[in-house]
Amino acid sequence: MRTPLSDLFGLDAPVVLAPMAGVAGGALAAAVSRAGGLGLVGGGYGDADWLDAQMALADAPVGIGFITWALNADTLAQSLAHGPRALMLSFGDPMPFAPAIRDAGVPLICQVQTVAHAARALDAGAAALVAQGGEAGGHGASRGTFSLVAEIVDLAAGRVPVVAAGGIADGRGLAAALMLGASGAMLGSRFWAAREALVADGLVDAALSATGDATVKGALPDAARGLAWPDGYAIRTLSTAFTDRWDGRADLLRGDDAARADWARAMADGDAARATPVVGEAVGLIHARLPAARIMGDLVSQARGCLARGAGLLSHEGADAAAC
Amino acid sequence: MRTPLSDLFGLDAPVVLAPMAGVAGGALAAAVSRAGGLGLVGGGYGDADWLDAQMALADAPVGIGFITWALNADTLAQSLAHGPRALMLSFGDPMPFAPAIRDAGVPLICQVQTVAHAARALDAGAAALVAQGGEAGGHGASRGTFSLVAEIVDLAAGRVPVVAAGGIADGRGLAAALMLGASGAMLGSRFWAAREALVADGLVDAALSATGDATVKGALPDAARGLAWPDGYAIRTLSTAFTDRWDGRADLLRGDDAARADWARAMADGDAARATPVVGEAVGLIHARLPAARIMGDLVSQARGCLARGAGLLSHEGADAAAC
Repeated sequence: MRTPLSDLFGLDAPVVLAPMAGVAGGALAAAVSRAGGLGLVGGGYGDADWLDAQMALADAPVGIGFITWALNADTLAQSLAHGPRALMLSFGDPMPFAPAIRDAGVPLICQVQTVAHAARALDAGAAALVAQGGEAGGHGASRGTFSLVAEIVDLAAGRVPVVAAGGIADGRGLAAALMLGASGAMLGSRFWAAREALVADGLVDAALSATGDATVKGALPDAARGLAWPDGYAIRTLSTAFTDRWDGRADLLRGDDAARADWARAMADGDAARATPVVGEAVGLIHARLPAARIMGDLVSQARGCLARGAGLLSHEGADAAAC
Repeated sequence: MRTPLSDLFGLDAPVVLAPMAGVAGGALAAAVSRAGGLGLVGGGYGDADWLDAQMALADAPVGIGFITWALNADTLAQSLAHGPRALMLSFGDPMPFAPAIRDAGVPLICQVQTVAHAARALDAGAAALVAQGGEAGGHGASRGTFSLVAEIVDLAAGRVPVVAAGGIADGRGLAAALMLGASGAMLGSRFWAAREALVADGLVDAALSATGDATVKGALPDAARGLAWPDGYAIRTLSTAFTDRWDGRADLLRGDDAARADWARAMADGDAARATPVVGEAVGLIHARLPAARIMGDLVSQARGCLARGAGLLSHEGADAAAC
């Protein structure tokens, strides 16, 4: 399944691991890369020690992703010293960091949430764009994946590959992304539930039994961690007893040290009801905790089946051809 | 392009016209049906005289759509007397109306916004489901199209066809919907901008120059019309000087008769800045006001091109195969 994205990075499958902060560690990223995709370690807010430790665990070439507004030049330089396969920036202006990344000879991937973001990323010299819809887990903005991808494909006009993200968890979604003109898909939730992900079992168990109706987007997990995100972004998680309890009271939560500590313990221990499992609306398509290699294999084989059956729709043969 | 949806309704193309209230009249619906799709007249809030007049203008078989919470048994009976090709219900519980529709021998299409809605619609005996993502124009809920479609396809499990709606405006979107397992696509915004749509030119002109970033979802147009929508739904329109001016003040607008009259005049006259053109995020993919027959032709030929190129991705030939 060859696309401009797979050509750019030498991939067997046009699949990118979302660099989920603290969740996509070296083992997960390496497993995705070994399976033919592009594994990205979730550098998140720039914890250099964590990043060094995770890069040491990566026994295959991987890239690194950062939250742009939390990044500084020192952390970027330290990460570039690892020789990452790619450097992804999301949530903020990539322009200040683009020259250092270019000078290091590392391809810059910019994740964008609007057409305006995409135009800025192209100006910054991005080698690839990720068009992320608001149904994604974790942080994002509000536009939906479907039209955002096609519109950014039009904007990029073939100059750089566009990757679809948000709401994609299986081969159907990968095939749909390709139809929209994307060169591949980036998956978060599906790999959040991978065996190699740094997520407590109890959180994954809660996600596996949820439908996609059961997520909520807001600021509570950021309040619980004391993070001050810029306007325009919010974080999507499972809806839980915790989000019900604190609904509309993020400011109060910020000042409640005991409640914040309880949330942190619950996240670490996997007590989902008192925590906020970080998944998107695609959670309703995820029913098992599998190794990343198995996820990659299923993704590709299902997407190939969808594409083949799509071609079958062009003939007037079978009405059942849509299923894949 | 044959799917379970096209088999159910005898369509040449698996495309459904969204029954946009007051916008999808008889001429537009008939044009879509003549071009091989399923045209639905937008019965909206149940104005019986308007519906009768529009059905008289339809010179091809068409269906009718209603806003469920605003429907009553008399209006439904009157609409069924027209012998519609299908009856679509959206935004509310279809169960009270399902028996009369079934007894009339008319296929019931239920538009749903969540997995829970879809389960209820299946219980009501829906012949087809429309899975509508929140990026759609007009009223909707919050889930994004991408994962909602695949999840509802899983729920329906082949018993009834599922149609994707929200964020789809071209053949790429139709092809993507088919990859997700949908049997077709329902389009609103794309046909809102059709020549036959009952929309003032000035509103369409504003939409044609907008990107998909330029929409907003809220209650202002409902406040301006004095409509009391149930919780859980909001209406997406272009962001305009009107929505900027009244942002966060819907209650004040409800009580301001002069402002409401001004809005109504602007909608009728096509003064977009003082009005709220009702389009979704797919507006960024729409660049011309075309006849419905041309829109249908473009949709199908582009979708066929995407499906054919998708099959090309299965070989290892060309990296450019993703464009369609």
